[in-house]
Amino acid sequence: MAFGWIDEQAELRRRAGLVRTLRPRPADSPLLDLASNDYLGLARHEEVVAGAVRSARRWGGGATGSRLVTGTTELHTALERELAGFCGFEAALVFSSGYAANLAAVTALAPHGSLIVSDAGNHASLIDGCRLARGTTQVVAHSDPDAVRKALRTHDGPAVAVSDTVFSVDGDAAPLAEYAEACRGRGAGLVVDDAHGLGVLGDGGRGAPYAAGIAGADDVVATVTLSKSLGSQGGAVLGPARVIEHLVNTARTFIFDTGLAPASAGAALAALGLLRREPERAARAGAVARELHARLTAAGLEAVRPDAAVVSVRAPSPEGAVQWAAECRAAGLAVGCFRPPSVPDGISRLRLTARADLTEAEIERAVRVIGETRP
Amino acid sequence: MAFGWIDEQAELRRRAGLVRTLRPRPADSPLLDLASNDYLGLARHEEVVAGAVRSARRWGGGATGSRLVTGTTELHTALERELAGFCGFEAALVFSSGYAANLAAVTALAPHGSLIVSDAGNHASLIDGCRLARGTTQVVAHSDPDAVRKALRTHDGPAVAVSDTVFSVDGDAAPLAEYAEACRGRGAGLVVDDAHGLGVLGDGGRGAPYAAGIAGADDVVATVTLSKSLGSQGGAVLGPARVIEHLVNTARTFIFDTGLAPASAGAALAALGLLRREPERAARAGAVARELHARLTAAGLEAVRPDAAVVSVRAPSPEGAVQWAAECRAAGLAVGCFRPPSVPDGISRLRLTARADLTEAEIERAVRVIGETRP
Repeated sequence: MAFGWIDEQAELRRRAGLVRTLRPRPADSPLLDLASNDYLGLARHEEVVAGAVRSARRWGGGATGSRLVTGTTELHTALERELAGFCGFEAALVFSSGYAANLAAVTALAPHGSLIVSDAGNHASLIDGCRLARGTTQVVAHSDPDAVRKALRTHDGPAVAVSDTVFSVDGDAAPLAEYAEACRGRGAGLVVDDAHGLGVLGDGGRGAPYAAGIAGADDVVATVTLSKSLGSQGGAVLGPARVIEHLVNTARTFIFDTGLAPASAGAALAALGLLRREPERAARAGAVARELHARLTAAGLEAVRPDAAVVSVRAPSPEGAVQWAAECRAAGLAVGCFRPPSVPDGISRLRLTARADLTEAEIERAVRVIGETRP
Repeated sequence: MAFGWIDEQAELRRRAGLVRTLRPRPADSPLLDLASNDYLGLARHEEVVAGAVRSARRWGGGATGSRLVTGTTELHTALERELAGFCGFEAALVFSSGYAANLAAVTALAPHGSLIVSDAGNHASLIDGCRLARGTTQVVAHSDPDAVRKALRTHDGPAVAVSDTVFSVDGDAAPLAEYAEACRGRGAGLVVDDAHGLGVLGDGGRGAPYAAGIAGADDVVATVTLSKSLGSQGGAVLGPARVIEHLVNTARTFIFDTGLAPASAGAALAALGLLRREPERAARAGAVARELHARLTAAGLEAVRPDAAVVSVRAPSPEGAVQWAAECRAAGLAVGCFRPPSVPDGISRLRLTARADLTEAEIERAVRVIGETRP
């Protein structure tokens, strides 16, 4: 039978304790959320929701076509201008997801004959970008500027180094300024995914490239997502105008995809407005993360020192991680549970999100539950 | 300089007359729209907009995480149940775009050692799916069941044939029933992208697989988009429950992407409700397409006989197509303009969308303008 081989794989997953199931949540979940990527707690902020509502009413339920046909509205342009301005880049291009933005940036900037130097800890979407690109990929050790320098020296012609700015699994930050220097020394471009940096790092949440002083450089391109700290959906590529024009003309996930829904564009635009007005939200997310880390460590747990708003706690095994997360849930706390094959090093973790709007009481409760349910 | 090579490519595009630019539209565009994929005219329907508004208010601006973490809501489940039921499949899985759904379906169903037989006219997202998949791809002649049969005979082990149901460029339909038979004869699966069939073909718009009598078969998987006839954003994979479970566990564009925004899920769900209540919308889109074709042909233009709601008109050259579309626009008519490299055969076209809500007067005006501006 056509898909019979699927059943064998399913059986293997069952035996290995690696089955994933969807757990639909209600609108008014009673769980304390330390699992989402809603870093600033903006997804349900009234201004963000109002941005979505206003835009759906004014522009409709969808963009109706490719951005190159009917799918670009003045709303998309406004969002792109605001994103570029906020993050300190010359221009921006909005996509239907951060995944699509990453596929676009890597494939468009790594033509045939080029070299891509890719960090071993990069997100799946950057890895898929490398696999789709016509250039050749060299994977290098995690967060190691020397490894990037060495790899770039093996190649003449167009080259890019590609890295997350904050790694989703452990929440550690990449050495961006050193990467930029290593790339500049070889005339290579630097492409960084700031999905977990925007809204958290940099002055008022302007992102990791801004914090590293490399935003707006003519050899730096950043991708961001609108679905994490901005509480919406979508992604964007930020960079020099010539790079954005190049993407408009060549990036397949731009040309052959429907434009971002107006409601999502409107929600993201409203969130950016909030960030401009209330820049302290970004710093608060970082402070909550450091406090979570300090309390977890004090409770004897093995947690990685957070560079942004992700706090990662080691679990003894995939089964142990699943059980731990399930017991947290039973005690009213939602935490992320990362395990193979979603973790590059095979180590299972609980992944906690330090939302800026967590109260002291909530932080205390979260740490208590995690400690008490420890396997 | 890092991205210097981009300028050379830009110069080549300029010389070839192939530069693409974004043309942001206002919310109240005065143009008559025959360019979007809003086949049923639902993107701005009050019920679809109300669905978006209600969902944003109830669920927030974004899904806040991967569908496997916090990104699955009861709203997503309701949409999946309704999509599967409407189209006649056992189960459905919603993605942030049709592009992501296609990458997921092809990569997850074509493991290492498998064969993918891919129609030469397939959409970019299916092609990228083939390139990302671990299986080997054989590209076969357009809409040729014998070619599919022949390719499948060269391989033992897991295999899938992959095809659009309605091809976006010329609007022609694939021989789905024959494909299904060819696949079944070899124990292969069939994956079809019904982006341009859903809402237009099949009883009340239930799609091309339903029309061909292959919906719900245990060896057939369909992908759809929520951003065309449903007037929203997003995509879905429809198929046997075992395939959907497999995607939940293995598809990277599902696991590593944020869930579809609530507003988009709500808009699509409202559109499906409308289609159930007003099934005549689907037939009307087809009738408008046939009328457009008849009138254009009567006016001496070379148009492809439409199988769905896309009417393709040949242009003499890329420059001629661009100029033709520009003159239509100057006369108040928005038409699509497809040219290299977005067309597989290098032939430039005007692409017209036969929206179900076009009036007789609008059809007449469109045909008159296209005839008068002919290069």
